[in-house]
Amino acid sequence: MPTPSLLPGWTTAPEVRATHRTDRSGFDLGDGPDAVVFAVSVDDVVAVLAHAHSTGGSVVVRGAGTGLSGGAVAGPGSTVLDLTHLDRIREISPTDELAVVEAGVVTADLDAAAARHGLRYAPDPASLAWSTIGGNIATNAGGLRCAKYGVTRDSVLGLDVVLADGRRISTGRRTVKGVAGYDLTGLLVGSEGTLGVVVGATVRLRPAPVRTATLAAWFDGFDAAAEAAAAITAARLQPAVAELLDASCLAAIAAVPGATEPHGRAFLLVQTDGYGADEEIAAVRDVVAPLTGRVELETDPHRADTLLATRRAALPALERLGRVLVEDVAVPRSRLPEAVAEIGAIADRSGIRIATMAHAGDGNLHPVLVLEPGRDLDDHVWDTAGAVFTTALQLGGTLTGEHGVGLLKRRWLRDELGPDALDLQQQLRTVFDPRGVLNPGKAL
Amino acid sequence: MPTPSLLPGWTTAPEVRATHRTDRSGFDLGDGPDAVVFAVSVDDVVAVLAHAHSTGGSVVVRGAGTGLSGGAVAGPGSTVLDLTHLDRIREISPTDELAVVEAGVVTADLDAAAARHGLRYAPDPASLAWSTIGGNIATNAGGLRCAKYGVTRDSVLGLDVVLADGRRISTGRRTVKGVAGYDLTGLLVGSEGTLGVVVGATVRLRPAPVRTATLAAWFDGFDAAAEAAAAITAARLQPAVAELLDASCLAAIAAVPGATEPHGRAFLLVQTDGYGADEEIAAVRDVVAPLTGRVELETDPHRADTLLATRRAALPALERLGRVLVEDVAVPRSRLPEAVAEIGAIADRSGIRIATMAHAGDGNLHPVLVLEPGRDLDDHVWDTAGAVFTTALQLGGTLTGEHGVGLLKRRWLRDELGPDALDLQQQLRTVFDPRGVLNPGKAL
Repeated sequence: MPTPSLLPGWTTAPEVRATHRTDRSGFDLGDGPDAVVFAVSVDDVVAVLAHAHSTGGSVVVRGAGTGLSGGAVAGPGSTVLDLTHLDRIREISPTDELAVVEAGVVTADLDAAAARHGLRYAPDPASLAWSTIGGNIATNAGGLRCAKYGVTRDSVLGLDVVLADGRRISTGRRTVKGVAGYDLTGLLVGSEGTLGVVVGATVRLRPAPVRTATLAAWFDGFDAAAEAAAAITAARLQPAVAELLDASCLAAIAAVPGATEPHGRAFLLVQTDGYGADEEIAAVRDVVAPLTGRVELETDPHRADTLLATRRAALPALERLGRVLVEDVAVPRSRLPEAVAEIGAIADRSGIRIATMAHAGDGNLHPVLVLEPGRDLDDHVWDTAGAVFTTALQLGGTLTGEHGVGLLKRRWLRDELGPDALDLQQQLRTVFDPRGVLNPGKAL
Repeated sequence: MPTPSLLPGWTTAPEVRATHRTDRSGFDLGDGPDAVVFAVSVDDVVAVLAHAHSTGGSVVVRGAGTGLSGGAVAGPGSTVLDLTHLDRIREISPTDELAVVEAGVVTADLDAAAARHGLRYAPDPASLAWSTIGGNIATNAGGLRCAKYGVTRDSVLGLDVVLADGRRISTGRRTVKGVAGYDLTGLLVGSEGTLGVVVGATVRLRPAPVRTATLAAWFDGFDAAAEAAAAITAARLQPAVAELLDASCLAAIAAVPGATEPHGRAFLLVQTDGYGADEEIAAVRDVVAPLTGRVELETDPHRADTLLATRRAALPALERLGRVLVEDVAVPRSRLPEAVAEIGAIADRSGIRIATMAHAGDGNLHPVLVLEPGRDLDDHVWDTAGAVFTTALQLGGTLTGEHGVGLLKRRWLRDELGPDALDLQQQLRTVFDPRGVLNPGKAL
């Protein structure tokens, strides 16, 4: 077993330590990590963990660093373990509709490889062009399509894991079903690098839909758009995608040079897919049309892509306006209109601009706090974010739908889980990592 | 906190102890449990567990007793905790597409209650008319529809649990998404009553499909039918149901007085659903028709139900012939034809009749060992079953797709999980149940 500092991927170069000290949350612990290791093999991962386990070190695992909750933020005393070079797609099995990948594979690359076999990797977080499968697994990432296809956990069949003491285990299987033993695979997904280091995964692929159909609707207010989204659910329709943007998001998009003018103060985008896509989108239109006059159906894939691009443009457009803090609460779908109204009231009270986009199909809201460029995340910012979290909990929801707890939400976690469940979780963590090697101070 | 023997539902009556000593596996530990408690409230559950925890007792939790792996079998020294009287559907929320139920609710009753709102509870184990939601959760039960809609875990959002020491916790949430803390809900599903007693659940409901379409195909051999099922997957089609019966199953069904004659030596039943059902079933027919001349499409719901009834009649028909041992292996879908061939060879070698039915859509096989009436499960029977399990593992599969490990499969579990993963699981069990109160000797 080599000492990590002898590994070819090990470095203490200040410029690397600087790039590896934070993630897309912008959260910062002051100085960066002591060292960074770019693993080029699972043996490297084993060496780093076994060394930390035996010497009392701490390790922060990192993929592309696109996380929004500070899960990969690294401070002094820690070693960052960067897995982006473990990026091989080892197998695509069209007959079993699965892929075996290393943790550093970029999500969009896997999806593209699957597409060559008429398949797709369903989870599509906004960061899919950069984020890695390992990072998606760490946070149980979601995305636009999870309204119909579920989150990352629903697509992971098995994992290759290095435990905190350097032992390797495999969890799960290549079959769709299986109940032999406890579901360690599911437990590791979403555990934010605190129970083991996921170095590889067997993931489920699904048939690429034969057809998609798209509907765009514009409303005078976000509450009306949220009501329309709830009406689609109430009509027992099941879109693959159902996305909402509020007036602040639309204004930010409109301010980007070359962008087209919005047709209202709120935007609802719905996509259906599969053999019944056209008939199902017509049923969606029948629900939405009585609620607004501005509805368009789009069956041309290129023009549909333009509508999707409007949705995807929102966060980059907001980032042009200042420092953003992207929140991630979820509520039961029927409470979406209330959540939207309450978030508007919080913005008014706090004086902080909050632009909200939402995955309406599963009640997942992303209220984005838009701060002055360079503003610190001071107490007033956190109080405002905390009011949003508390609202979500009061409506029967959760602090985080798909980004994770990381560093940012730990202080509210007990309110959601309760003391006994949180205590159990801390004991589970100790079973996996008795010496506290893995991502200490995060997730719980 | 009352002593359990003071609870109104507590009994040591020999006839009750006799009915509660085994489940549908027929497995038997000699004498039955010391006592049975019919819980009528969660407080009763708390009292039984707290008492066992403090006195060193052991508790076997039981629903309807339809389990096939011996998970609810109870022997001397144990108390059976029967939850069937906790049978209230506390809420159906059509707007959030969820239900809140007590553990003893019968699965079909929940589905029927959901149907009144245009919804359904998707998991449909063969026992759904008798089995309880709590039992389904304990084994992560599957069923015919899980080819498209997933197993029980995919429909459970949150749980109300009494821990081994009598503390109550809630896990999960009412939202579709959520990543705050580790996924205790997923860990408890399929844990066979060894991590906590599930007394209630928040489950997901899904829109009832607007249409279903059904195809029945008959083949000269099971291998040809399995190849047809694999061809459907390879064509990127995604049926809601894809079921196979072999010649032994068909012969058993034909032997039931009044049954119609089979049209071949293997039967494939496929159902599609949703807005595109008709078009998708036509695509299925285009794949299957070149492989056999005997294909019929059925859009009439009543005649389609008759075809489904053929499938559901198989196990009762086999039970008329002798003592059955229902196995439950799963393999990657592409390996289904190999698994079928190898199981046939095992039957020939052993001289034990093995009738096989399969959920082809997810590679889950139920090879049913048909023994003489009253025959003991002797070493030759277990060697034969063991050969089936080993075959599944060699093909990249699992010992159990949807029935659980229970008592029956413990001796093969290490072969599947490996020693390190099994050791971790045992440590997790100890965190939840340090004194070994819950279902000792089962599951791991």
